[in-house]
Amino acid sequence: MGKKNKQFVEKVTAMEDDFAQWYTDVVKQADLVDYGPVRGTMIIKPEGFAIWENIRDELDRQIKETGHSNVSFPLFIPESLLQKEKDHVEGFAPEVAWVTHGGDEELGERLVVRPTSEALFCEYYSKNIHSYRDLPVLYNQWSNVVRWEKTTRPFLRSLEFLWQEGHTAHATYEDAAEETDKMLGVYADVVENHLAIPVLRGRKTDKEKFAGADYTLTIESLMHDGKALQSGTSHHFGTGFAEAFDITYLDENGDSKHVHQTSWGITTRLIGALIMVHGDNRGLVIPPRIAPTQAMIVPIAQHKEGVLDKAYELRDRLKNLVRVGIDGSDKMPGWKFNEYEMKGIPVRIEMGPKDIEKEQVVLVRRDTGEKEFIALTELEDRLPVLLEEIQQNLFNKAAKHREEKTSIVKNMGEFKETLDENPGFIKAMWCGALACEEKIKEETQATSRCIPFEQESVSDTCVCCGTEAKELVYWAKAY
Amino acid sequence: MGKKNKQFVEKVTAMEDDFAQWYTDVVKQADLVDYGPVRGTMIIKPEGFAIWENIRDELDRQIKETGHSNVSFPLFIPESLLQKEKDHVEGFAPEVAWVTHGGDEELGERLVVRPTSEALFCEYYSKNIHSYRDLPVLYNQWSNVVRWEKTTRPFLRSLEFLWQEGHTAHATYEDAAEETDKMLGVYADVVENHLAIPVLRGRKTDKEKFAGADYTLTIESLMHDGKALQSGTSHHFGTGFAEAFDITYLDENGDSKHVHQTSWGITTRLIGALIMVHGDNRGLVIPPRIAPTQAMIVPIAQHKEGVLDKAYELRDRLKNLVRVGIDGSDKMPGWKFNEYEMKGIPVRIEMGPKDIEKEQVVLVRRDTGEKEFIALTELEDRLPVLLEEIQQNLFNKAAKHREEKTSIVKNMGEFKETLDENPGFIKAMWCGALACEEKIKEETQATSRCIPFEQESVSDTCVCCGTEAKELVYWAKAY
Repeated sequence: MGKKNKQFVEKVTAMEDDFAQWYTDVVKQADLVDYGPVRGTMIIKPEGFAIWENIRDELDRQIKETGHSNVSFPLFIPESLLQKEKDHVEGFAPEVAWVTHGGDEELGERLVVRPTSEALFCEYYSKNIHSYRDLPVLYNQWSNVVRWEKTTRPFLRSLEFLWQEGHTAHATYEDAAEETDKMLGVYADVVENHLAIPVLRGRKTDKEKFAGADYTLTIESLMHDGKALQSGTSHHFGTGFAEAFDITYLDENGDSKHVHQTSWGITTRLIGALIMVHGDNRGLVIPPRIAPTQAMIVPIAQHKEGVLDKAYELRDRLKNLVRVGIDGSDKMPGWKFNEYEMKGIPVRIEMGPKDIEKEQVVLVRRDTGEKEFIALTELEDRLPVLLEEIQQNLFNKAAKHREEKTSIVKNMGEFKETLDENPGFIKAMWCGALACEEKIKEETQATSRCIPFEQESVSDTCVCCGTEAKELVYWAKAY
Repeated sequence: MGKKNKQFVEKVTAMEDDFAQWYTDVVKQADLVDYGPVRGTMIIKPEGFAIWENIRDELDRQIKETGHSNVSFPLFIPESLLQKEKDHVEGFAPEVAWVTHGGDEELGERLVVRPTSEALFCEYYSKNIHSYRDLPVLYNQWSNVVRWEKTTRPFLRSLEFLWQEGHTAHATYEDAAEETDKMLGVYADVVENHLAIPVLRGRKTDKEKFAGADYTLTIESLMHDGKALQSGTSHHFGTGFAEAFDITYLDENGDSKHVHQTSWGITTRLIGALIMVHGDNRGLVIPPRIAPTQAMIVPIAQHKEGVLDKAYELRDRLKNLVRVGIDGSDKMPGWKFNEYEMKGIPVRIEMGPKDIEKEQVVLVRRDTGEKEFIALTELEDRLPVLLEEIQQNLFNKAAKHREEKTSIVKNMGEFKETLDENPGFIKAMWCGALACEEKIKEETQATSRCIPFEQESVSDTCVCCGTEAKELVYWAKAY
């Protein structure tokens, strides 16, 4: 809509010239998103939402497979409830939307439009968990949340976004730790194996952890411009929320104990990651496993007798095998090529009179532009294999890019120089002091992305202060 | 949770004694829902949400099959945008929640938390529809909406609820009319064939139509207590919104025309309908096609050697055939029977040492309580057939109940008498005057439910004023 009557797809800004503008151009030109009437809100259009549905469906499957149940908790949180956990309210209160009136009446107590739902789940758990037999509680919800951000960009940072938030309660610290790990593993699986984006797994520093958490685990990915993007987080709350909300259970000996909790979430931001990891100057590139349309049939010389019939016949043959589309409109093939490249459809299937004569089609890969001629009799075997090859190639390319953009540095001079010359992940040792973390951010704009699970020693001393190093940290400028 | 350590499921109030209390008891005891901390909001618990997921998945499938795309529009509507369509703002402004502050700042313009999204879709269409080639636009979204209701009940009327809202734009009045019909047909199919609830199809009177619509089509169902429940509506807007929002397109001759629009929605209220149509004094009864668990295996004398193993073996055998659960906990079988009857699971499968010896199981229907012994070798054939029999029986029972509760009346005396003696649908002729409709509501509390598509003449004169009758109307007290 609003595109069909244009004859050429507009060009996007080259990513080398202006990456931010390239991103904005792609989300618009690929018809993913538009702006809502309230500053910072977005309208996710059909082709953007279909990507989200595919991410959601795969993640939802894994969330259920790991024993969780979906629920729906309310949108509004009474102010007093948000305030129960001190760190939590400090972290979120500055960026919430406030409901003050219902109909014609001013409310006795202001309501927060949920920025996240810990307070609601905790309140519920405090009333409904009684015994060790009630544990674990493994809940998840798919919902919208609102955060009153000052600067916004579609998918990456918006006033309202879609996400899932898991909230669980366990008998022991260890059980909650296992859950926190498990869900990070689910996220890593979905992002690596379905979005074809390699991730670093690690723990956030105390400065960067979730407001109210004992610790936060994260998966971090690297965008094409060398900036990092936090792609999913899983938090261990210990008993912090349980103490604030009085969530206790009787153990097998009849002793009252606080539960141990977790929460974990991924958001529509992942669509932004997908764009910035796989996209190129011709537009979006969608990994086949989550592409709403995996192959698009474009008839060539379709005015010639029999071509359109054969093309629709092919569509019917393939539609139970892959997610296939066909464009039988009267636009020129070249315009269609541009449009579906812009939209990132993994494979284009061309079929013209000569192909029909030779009983073949042409397959064109979006990722490499390579063409192959394939006999119609072999198409059903080849197409799924080709889609998997594309999936794998996208992952490999992204992994190679990340490797090239990952540098080891040993002092602040190298740190700054590297960020200038080859921006990306910086591997550097840290002493563990907040002061050093803050100084690095101040001097380089890079933040600590994670303390990776896979530790190694790249130097004996802290990159910032030169005292004894405690652990390896990945740093980067980030979205 | 909060149930597992109770040894007996609590009894529900008998529906004959107090239907409203029975309803409240069932939604709580069957673990469907709990109250949120803000008055009138609800927490949909796992077993309630799983029902919603099944309704949603089937409806979503049909919405896509009929050519619609899912999208996501924002939660907030600027006040000025809501006010563009006069009838619409009059209908909704008294019952909306207002956001007045974001973070620490007072907003320049108040925001409405969407009670419905016509204003947002219309604003978008006005900017993005240009040509007849852009039409039709067939959008749908699954979302939460907020209406500041004074009296609330879980599922039936709540401050916040979940729904889908379709919003479409068409070139002609006839195209939009066809869409309005088609989506009512989809709703009727889902409600009748999946929820096993027979519906009346018809048109709302002008008094009862949607604020801003040309006309509203509705499906109406009858609850066990004889009250009606509006179960889905489909609205034809004509060009009313298009004129208010300036949504025009150039037709094939290059003339500027207003689009013709529709919207249509169903909500989590359908779960309330399901409870009040099929439930009984032992609790919930869920139609098999949408039951999250269709069959629950309850081992008998499970302490005896081999029983639990055989029961789990049976579960594994059946799990690709039907949605099957198993309760291997150490609760007594009788307690389990009560619990799964309360939760409305269509079939219970009992298996004890004697059954294992005879290579059989016992199937117990939730709807009739009938038992049958079935050889293990025949179970895979029998179980799906039995589930369909239950589905059909629930529909037939509800249809019979509706028939018994549907009366023809010819004057106001009969009208009131019938509502007292056999409350349900009242078929009566109407002159078409608003005054009569209002008088009937005032004197009987019954409202016009619909002007049925299947018209018949049950009298020559209006049931209220005695002047010439124009059409047949179904009336009822309603939720």
